[in-house]
Amino acid sequence: MIEKITDAIIFKLIRERYSKAVPFHNFLGLKVSKFNYEVAEITLPWNENLVGNATQMMLHGGVTATVLDAVGGLAAVGNFVSKEKHQSADFIKKRISRMGTVDLRIDYLLPGKGDKFTATARVIRAGKRLTVCRMEMHNDQGQCIAMGTGTYLWSD
Amino acid sequence: MIEKITDAIIFKLIRERYSKAVPFHNFLGLKVSKFNYEVAEITLPWNENLVGNATQMMLHGGVTATVLDAVGGLAAVGNFVSKEKHQSADFIKKRISRMGTVDLRIDYLLPGKGDKFTATARVIRAGKRLTVCRMEMHNDQGQCIAMGTGTYLWSD
Amino acid sequence: MIEKITDAIIFKLIRERYSKAVPFHNFLGLKVSKFNYEVAEITLPWNENLVGNATQMMLHGGVTATVLDAVGGLAAVGNFVSKEKHQSADFIKKRISRMGTVDLRIDYLLPGKGDKFTATARVIRAGKRLTVCRMEMHNDQGQCIAMGTGTYLWSD
Amino acid sequence: MIEKITDAIIFKLIRERYSKAVPFHNFLGLKVSKFNYEVAEITLPWNENLVGNATQMMLHGGVTATVLDAVGGLAAVGNFVSKEKHQSADFIKKRISRMGTVDLRIDYLLPGKGDKFTATARVIRAGKRLTVCRMEMHNDQGQCIAMGTGTYLWSD
Repeated sequence: MIEKITDAIIFKLIRERYSKAVPFHNFLGLKVSKFNYEVAEITLPWNENLVGNATQMMLHGGVTATVLDAVGGLAAVGNFVSKEKHQSADFIKKRISRMGTVDLRIDYLLPGKGDKFTATARVIRAGKRLTVCRMEMHNDQGQCIAMGTGTYLWSD
Repeated sequence: MIEKITDAIIFKLIRERYSKAVPFHNFLGLKVSKFNYEVAEITLPWNENLVGNATQMMLHGGVTATVLDAVGGLAAVGNFVSKEKHQSADFIKKRISRMGTVDLRIDYLLPGKGDKFTATARVIRAGKRLTVCRMEMHNDQGQCIAMGTGTYLWSD
Repeated sequence: MIEKITDAIIFKLIRERYSKAVPFHNFLGLKVSKFNYEVAEITLPWNENLVGNATQMMLHGGVTATVLDAVGGLAAVGNFVSKEKHQSADFIKKRISRMGTVDLRIDYLLPGKGDKFTATARVIRAGKRLTVCRMEMHNDQGQCIAMGTGTYLWSD
Repeated sequence: MIEKITDAIIFKLIRERYSKAVPFHNFLGLKVSKFNYEVAEITLPWNENLVGNATQMMLHGGVTATVLDAVGGLAAVGNFVSKEKHQSADFIKKRISRMGTVDLRIDYLLPGKGDKFTATARVIRAGKRLTVCRMEMHNDQGQCIAMGTGTYLWSD
């Protein structure tokens, strides 16, 4: 029972920090909409500042890359917490603050059109040093507009 | 003589549009600093909204991806213009408005710290349908903080 | 009825050619094990020539890349045939012979150990000019040892 | 003076092992042609078993991926040796045997035609845990037929 409460608190804290304490997430309007051991999900409402192609009113590819990088990192953090949950909060916090993206691949599949975008990620490699995730981003009509793969490093 | 004037005008127009008429470039503060047949260069001054890791005050990886995607696309446009310069302005404008990123790889090499970031690109494959570019981003201390590769499609 | 027969013949022909008429597939021992509108699957039995790390007796990463590139290309061909099946056999043959890989990303997830390896692919973008696929390779214990993404171009 | 001899011996040993003791390198005919602190270079003579597209007699994309993966790994090893050269031969040997490719991106730029192919690599990130390299492959007419980027992990 105590463990579940602790878990819920950890996830709630990370979720809030990931939305509010990351300036660029805040700037774009990106929010963590679901986050637990199973799911990492990020939502971004449409906003005219995010447009890349003004003729076609599509999201800039860099916005898509940002959201996919963020949701992959979030899934990596969820996986790390699930394995290290018996460690101290300080240890967990310190390790998370030093995690960084090593490389990222984005595949743009359909024009980035929609009122709201939802991105999810799953862990495909969960090592001691590296976490690799595959990510997807859908618009509010259920179309998959982009997929990605990210490699994340846990530095000492 | 007339050709050189026309070229200069084309490059000036694209350069202005790429900075001002792309809302997300404007939002981030990204500017085309050099653009001609040989060079595509984009500059981004540091700005606290662009931070990804607040503990370490580093650029968000999505900002880096945006700048590298943008400069790769710009180099692809420069290459296209160099081959199609005898076409009408309408043709060139239409083709450019339909160019899109197919896929992107970003390698994050050093923490994104600095007062100003400069990105350059060069074309490594220049086909009728596809242009592939390699990109680099340096900070104002001359450190290469990220490299990337982008594949761009010219749709009909 | 006639259409089904034709389809079956097309798939059978491509399947045979993909195993036997591609020298490098033959050299490695790679076989198309399933191929129709829904599935592209390639199988590779273990073979000591394919070892990359002799201490650990693992497949060379280049073997994995070969199998994933091949199965992604096969899925792209299946998708193309499904859309162009009313065209002449000559047209289909010519277009397939000119299809090529533009870029490839491979993620190595677990050591390449096993007696037999099975790779599958699915199309994630099916355009007129480009097909993008995601691929997976499993060993005979059901472990996913690698994933990949491939971009394929249909040249004129 | 002694250091230089030792270095030369280390490089010679790795060079020989990389050509002869890796079964898949041997199978394809791939040789380490240059290897020291500055350069990692691998050569592959044309051979009809390596063909992917029999109509056009081009190298299979998997062969290109193998050579680029191999030369990137070799550059990573060279960089590691340069930093750890005061360690024991056993330590160096053990670490190298556990190095592995995490992910690989290959860009195919021109048809893989030629009598001989030469691949080189340079390190773009040299961390304690990860080495990232950029690779190129040229044919004997000096054409760059493919480029790549590889991420390599040094496991404990």
